[in-house]
This record gives sequence, structure tokens and C-alpha cells, in this order.
Amino acid sequence: MMFNKICIIGVGLIGGSIALAARKNKLCSNIVGFGRPKSRDNLIYAQTQGIIDSYYFDMDAAVQDADCIIIATPVGTTEAVLAQLKDYWSDTAVYTDVGSTKASVVEAAEKVFGFIPANFVPAHPIAGAEQSGAQAAISDLFLDKRLIITPTKVTSPGSLGLIQDFWQQIGALVSIMDIQHHDAVLAATSHLPHVLAYALVDLLARKDEQNEIFKYAAGGFKDFTRIASSDPGMWLDICLANKNEIIKLIHQLQGEMENIAQMLEKNDSQQLFHIFSNAKNARQRFLNFYEK
Amino acid sequence: MMFNKICIIGVGLIGGSIALAARKNKLCSNIVGFGRPKSRDNLIYAQTQGIIDSYYFDMDAAVQDADCIIIATPVGTTEAVLAQLKDYWSDTAVYTDVGSTKASVVEAAEKVFGFIPANFVPAHPIAGAEQSGAQAAISDLFLDKRLIITPTKVTSPGSLGLIQDFWQQIGALVSIMDIQHHDAVLAATSHLPHVLAYALVDLLARKDEQNEIFKYAAGGFKDFTRIASSDPGMWLDICLANKNEIIKLIHQLQGEMENIAQMLEKNDSQQLFHIFSNAKNARQRFLNFYEK
Repeated sequence: MMFNKICIIGVGLIGGSIALAARKNKLCSNIVGFGRPKSRDNLIYAQTQGIIDSYYFDMDAAVQDADCIIIATPVGTTEAVLAQLKDYWSDTAVYTDVGSTKASVVEAAEKVFGFIPANFVPAHPIAGAEQSGAQAAISDLFLDKRLIITPTKVTSPGSLGLIQDFWQQIGALVSIMDIQHHDAVLAATSHLPHVLAYALVDLLARKDEQNEIFKYAAGGFKDFTRIASSDPGMWLDICLANKNEIIKLIHQLQGEMENIAQMLEKNDSQQLFHIFSNAKNARQRFLNFYEK
Repeated sequence: MMFNKICIIGVGLIGGSIALAARKNKLCSNIVGFGRPKSRDNLIYAQTQGIIDSYYFDMDAAVQDADCIIIATPVGTTEAVLAQLKDYWSDTAVYTDVGSTKASVVEAAEKVFGFIPANFVPAHPIAGAEQSGAQAAISDLFLDKRLIITPTKVTSPGSLGLIQDFWQQIGALVSIMDIQHHDAVLAATSHLPHVLAYALVDLLARKDEQNEIFKYAAGGFKDFTRIASSDPGMWLDICLANKNEIIKLIHQLQGEMENIAQMLEKNDSQQLFHIFSNAKNARQRFLNFYEK
């Protein structure tokens, strides 16, 4: 067994799926969950379904003798979770997280500890769904999915190796990346598209009190706006945690849209066709990666 | 039989699917296709598969004795097609089209004829796919899908009734709508999302010559950008044909995005949460319509 006891802080879609995958791949003998009393029903469900062996509302008991602690709460809560973990921090355990933004997580650790613990390995599995909670957890959520580890300057090679090994055994495709680069890449492929989908649907909803516009929307609109059904609270957290990168991209996209508006104004078929074709070709390259 | 001979100008995804649906629902005894010599292979395929009974490169022969003529070519070609039809125009037949924009189609008719023929019924089936050509045609493409008819001031009630009946028998959900209103609604739910998807993917592709960004994109990105794989030539036509409505919406969306950028800058959680939640709720209303 890679670990004796894994403690998962936040047994939602991601935390629950990690538990299921760790158990399936025989990576630990014991898995416990930590949550707030208000998520009692979720924790009871997770225990009943065998996702976790037991659960705690008390951090002291939850992390006792755990050799792997995984923070799987919304990224905005990382600082509060680390503050709770601080008093029971073990130098012989490895700590990791699953936050969609990484600079904010590392800043939270620095704020809580005054330094970054060498056995804290920031990570981000690129997988998810609109659904949330332990009920949505599945054991193969991370299979063949990308997982990015963003070690800090002080991350110990031993801790890094353990987390890398853990995710590889779960079946994820692990990459090591610089923190700033991770946040820039994810802002482009995930955070900006979410902001755009929310912005478009909100704009149309405010124009259209009788829902008439939506009545005539079709399958293309359905797919384009799927991510606008994502959890608003979780995405508020992510957007605020990575706001500098997102604001930069919003302004770049505004420039691109302004160019397109001017090309339309001038009937500039050639330039418009170039943009549309370039996008179609680039998406095909993405599909070639994605489906490989 | 509703019609004796239907002539379909442009036997692509839409034209081919109309032919299959008309035959399946026994709405005519004979279906012919008209195309350009460069689409000969497509027409041969359509005939071989029984989608059409015969095909012509000569408009005179194609429309001879047809009592229903359906223009199913890209919207940018409507004027040229009407100019070809003009010499053989029959007052006893009914003419319709399937263009995604309707003001441009009516303008094209006015330009060609100097007036709008009373037996021309502009229509728009809200259905499609990324694939194109007769090979992608299916008989139930329009089943339970919206179809909007935008009669002009001079459209004869008899012609309107025939086209309405035709589409209802195919299984489409027919609405009658004002031309300008159609173009505004479709700009919002279809044309703007396509422009946005193209703009985003083009922006990222230009930032990312090594395709690294796309390597880390996930399922949300895949769905969000699906419509960026649509045919660039077809969408260039549509965007130019409805450019006034689209430019207006681009500017409105730029305003919305600027608001969001400022809220992020100011950490205005409350306003951001309001926008994200409003979008999520509005999309749920759309899904309730769409899945009904």
C-alpha cells in the first residue's frame, strides 16, 4: 500500500472520486473524510456507500495518523482549511490539494504558515462535471485525464514523487508545471470560457424577460452554454482566485471581438473567413489531443 | 399528396434532410435536386441513396412543373439563386427557403424582382449539425424542432398556409414571426455564440503556437467550442447577412464583460455571484423549453 490512511477534506465530487479511485487501485488501507456539520448528510451518504470508512467534524481526529491529507474543498476555502490543519501538521505526512487555481493556494499557505511547507504539493486534476457532492463521485473520473502538479521552490522531491505516483496509479496523465504558467493556461481554457458563458446567458436573460429568445435556441446554444450551469459559488471562488489572468484575457477577447465587429462593418470577408477557419482548424488540433 | 414535384436547390444537409422527410411523410410524389456541376458527386450520392429522384445542373429543367421550390443553399447565395429562378418563376408554385437570416433573403428578392413575389415564403428551420452535404442528411432532422416562417407584407395566405402545413407534417414546431424580430432573436441565440466561439478559439490559437493551451483543455472547453467547428464559409455568409444585429450584440456583450472585469478588480463577490446565478437559472429555463 502506498498510504496507510488518507484523509480527504471535503468529500464532494472530486474528493469522493479520489477516495473511490484510491480504493479501487489499492493505494491505501483506510480513507476518512472531514467535513462541516452542515454537510453531515453528504458524509453519511459517502460512508454508507463505502466511499470513505469514517468521517469527522473534528480536524484533530480526522488527520490523526494520516500519512496523506488531500484538500478537496472549493479553492476559496483553502486558507481556512490550512489554518485548521496547521496545529496538527505532520512532517511525516504528505499534503496536497485539487484547487483549480494554484498561485492563490500557495499564497494561502504562505499566509497561514509564514512559509510554504516542503511536504505540501499543490496539484490540479483537470476533470469535473456540473454535478456536485459525493453522490456524483465516480471511480474513473480521473482516468486518462490531465493532472497538473505545480511544485513550489521548496517542495521536497520525496513529497512531489509520492503525489505524482499516487495520481499516476489512479490513471491520470501527470504534468509538472510552473505555478504562474498553470494559472495562465487554465484561465484561457477553463476560467475565461466559464466567464463568457455566464456573461452571455446573463445578458440574454436580462434582454428577454419572457424567455422568448431561449425558446428558439437550439443544440449549438445548449452545448455552448453548458458550463453556465456550473456551480456559481465555486466559480466565483475560482474567478476571484485567478482574477489577474482572467481580466487580462477578458481584455484580449474584447479586442478580438472589436476587430470582428469592425470586419463585419466593412464586409471584410477575407479577414473574417481567416479568423473562422483558423478557429476551426485549431479546434481540430484540440480534438486530436483530447480524443487521443 | 400535398405536392406533385418538389425541386430542392442545394441538396446538402438541410436540403437532403427535407427531401428525406418529405418522402417519409408522403408529401410529394417526385423530388428533384438542382446543384452546380462542381457538386456532381454529392448529387449522384443523393440520387443513388434515393434522397432525390433525379438531379439537374440546368434550372429550367429542374423547376419544370415543380409546384414547390425550396432554396437550401448558403444564405449568401440566395440572390444569385433567385436571379436564376426569375426567368422560370411560376405563379402557381410556392417558393420557400431555409436561410438562417431573413431580412437579407427578402432584400435579395426585392433586388432581383423589384418587388417581393407573393408566393415566396421565407422560412428558417432551427436545426443543423457541424456535418454538411447529402451524406449527413437524415429524415428526422426537423422532428420536434422549431421552424420559423417570416411572411412579408405581401405573402399570400395560400402560400403561407401551404408552407406551414408542409413543415407541420414533417414534424416541426412552426412559429410565425416578424422578419426583424427573427433576425434579432437568432443573432442572440445562434449568430453571437458562433462569433464568440470562433473569436475565443482564434485568440487562444494565436497565443499558443505550440498547442500547449489546448493540451490542458477539458470537456467544458470541448462543448463550449463545438460550434467553432462549424463551416467557416457558411457562417461568414450568415454573419454578413445579419451584421447589424450581431454588431449590436457584440457591443452589448463587451459591456457585460467590462462590468465583470471591473467586479473582479474590486472583488465584488455579491454582483459576480448574482450574474453567475442569474445565468445558471436562465439556462435551466432554456433547458426546460428545450427538453420539453
